[in-house]
Amino acid sequence: MVAFGGNALLRSGQKGSFQEQVTNVERTCENLVPLLEKGYGIVIGHGNGPQVGNGLLRHAAGEKEAGLPAMPMDFCGAETQGSIAYLIETGMDRVLHRSGINRRVVSLVTRVEVKADDPMFRNPTKPVGPYYTKEQAQKLADETGATYKEDPKGRGWRKVVPSPVPVDICNVDLVARLAREGNIVVTVGGGGIPVVKEDGVLKGVEAVIDKDLASALCAIRIGADEFYILTDVPKVYINFRRVGEKALDTLTVAEAREYLAQGQFAEGSMAPKVRAGIYFVENGGSECIITEAGELGNSSCGTRIIK
Amino acid sequence: MVAFGGNALLRSGQKGSFQEQVTNVERTCENLVPLLEKGYGIVIGHGNGPQVGNGLLRHAAGEKEAGLPAMPMDFCGAETQGSIAYLIETGMDRVLHRSGINRRVVSLVTRVEVKADDPMFRNPTKPVGPYYTKEQAQKLADETGATYKEDPKGRGWRKVVPSPVPVDICNVDLVARLAREGNIVVTVGGGGIPVVKEDGVLKGVEAVIDKDLASALCAIRIGADEFYILTDVPKVYINFRRVGEKALDTLTVAEAREYLAQGQFAEGSMAPKVRAGIYFVENGGSECIITEAGELGNSSCGTRIIK
Repeated sequence: MVAFGGNALLRSGQKGSFQEQVTNVERTCENLVPLLEKGYGIVIGHGNGPQVGNGLLRHAAGEKEAGLPAMPMDFCGAETQGSIAYLIETGMDRVLHRSGINRRVVSLVTRVEVKADDPMFRNPTKPVGPYYTKEQAQKLADETGATYKEDPKGRGWRKVVPSPVPVDICNVDLVARLAREGNIVVTVGGGGIPVVKEDGVLKGVEAVIDKDLASALCAIRIGADEFYILTDVPKVYINFRRVGEKALDTLTVAEAREYLAQGQFAEGSMAPKVRAGIYFVENGGSECIITEAGELGNSSCGTRIIK
Repeated sequence: MVAFGGNALLRSGQKGSFQEQVTNVERTCENLVPLLEKGYGIVIGHGNGPQVGNGLLRHAAGEKEAGLPAMPMDFCGAETQGSIAYLIETGMDRVLHRSGINRRVVSLVTRVEVKADDPMFRNPTKPVGPYYTKEQAQKLADETGATYKEDPKGRGWRKVVPSPVPVDICNVDLVARLAREGNIVVTVGGGGIPVVKEDGVLKGVEAVIDKDLASALCAIRIGADEFYILTDVPKVYINFRRVGEKALDTLTVAEAREYLAQGQFAEGSMAPKVRAGIYFVENGGSECIITEAGELGNSSCGTRIIK
């Protein structure tokens, strides 16, 4: 199982043109070649932060400019599953062809179940979509029941959605089977489309599921041998960018917990990755490797989280 | 194989709110229950006309309002595959639960290959996206190389894209297998994301593949026993809404060709459906049934196109 961020495709500092995204995704796929050459079956879970952010802005602009109803977060997340999977299929095909590897990519639209009574639903924290004035935000909150909070940097008010814990993944048995047959499977895009069970059936909710945690759950359910979380640094560090900075080769669950408690890993960045790694090895996984994409295939790459 | 139009989800006359779409898709799924109760494996191919139209408008608005680069047609089509599949999975789940049917839905992001030398590429005819002034259209044409044509009703200038013939469907063997195992499979959304082979690899192109024709090709490749094309009239008619109107119970390929030559079936409406039916039965299919969704399960429903 390999998880990579939405920013592996849509990089900050770029405008995000189609050609830029095509180039970025192809480079990311290129990095998976060493794993493919080893004969691994590969399942890709990807983020969608910048993409769904742009999607929400486009929906807001479409409502303002053309009177098109803006769709909720779950719908916009589903859109990014389609578009990012398409970019991955295209980029991976080029890489496979160039490398002479005979595999194919299968992409599944994937809903991920969260619990309706997850405590995060009472405390939405994840800011999404455009900035509004206080008055606009109040009006939208009254109309839709959504929660809006003031941006700490004073850029305005934004909708905040909960980030509940994933508990189940639709069609995950199929993901396992397809991967074991040699297919490269794309799933849990953006952490999955969040759904809750209501009267026995799944129903979409506005929320954001952490993509590393959704990928960790997927890795467990498919019985993945290894779980790679790709990021933009080669290893996990303590005292990152401070005196005493140290790259870690291995990290036991106990050490990881201790460092998390010390605040060694940044929230919204390395901390959720380390937590996803802990979750994987505590639920049957052998090791989670957090590393830079370009390091894959290098036997001493990254930081290995072990039990 | 069942094909239904994008307007089964997003109806003209409605604003297209999320709740309206959820209700529409659930009603459409409800109509498939008689087929499910007969034990059929079902593959769903759906259109995306109104959805990708809205997507293109949102991308144009996002560029204007927020400086977000508008993405090409193939990318927007991929977005609709994600969002429509999500709506179908959700609606179908509710219907299956209510009907006590134990099936599940699997949705694949699907690229469909067209030939780079398809003559339609030299004659783009399908208008898509927003209307522009002549000057704006000229500027966009110069910048992007796309073709713009004046709307015959004088509403302005619009981009026109080709509608090439589908020749292959990615992962169609998998669609067949999943359907035979009892899964309800969603594929070729919007006629599929159009790709052409260039130097041995598939590359996206701006085009629209007719969803009935893509579904017909899918039906042939998966060896479908029956191919249903759902529309908003119960049968195919000759002299439709004129003196001598007659509903047809069966239509041989020879008769269908003759009526097409007479202009009995409207372009952009019944004509492509009849052509897709001909294509299916001439390439190994036994019969294609064109009917209203609510008529499914009724043994004398629709018009049967036979060899």
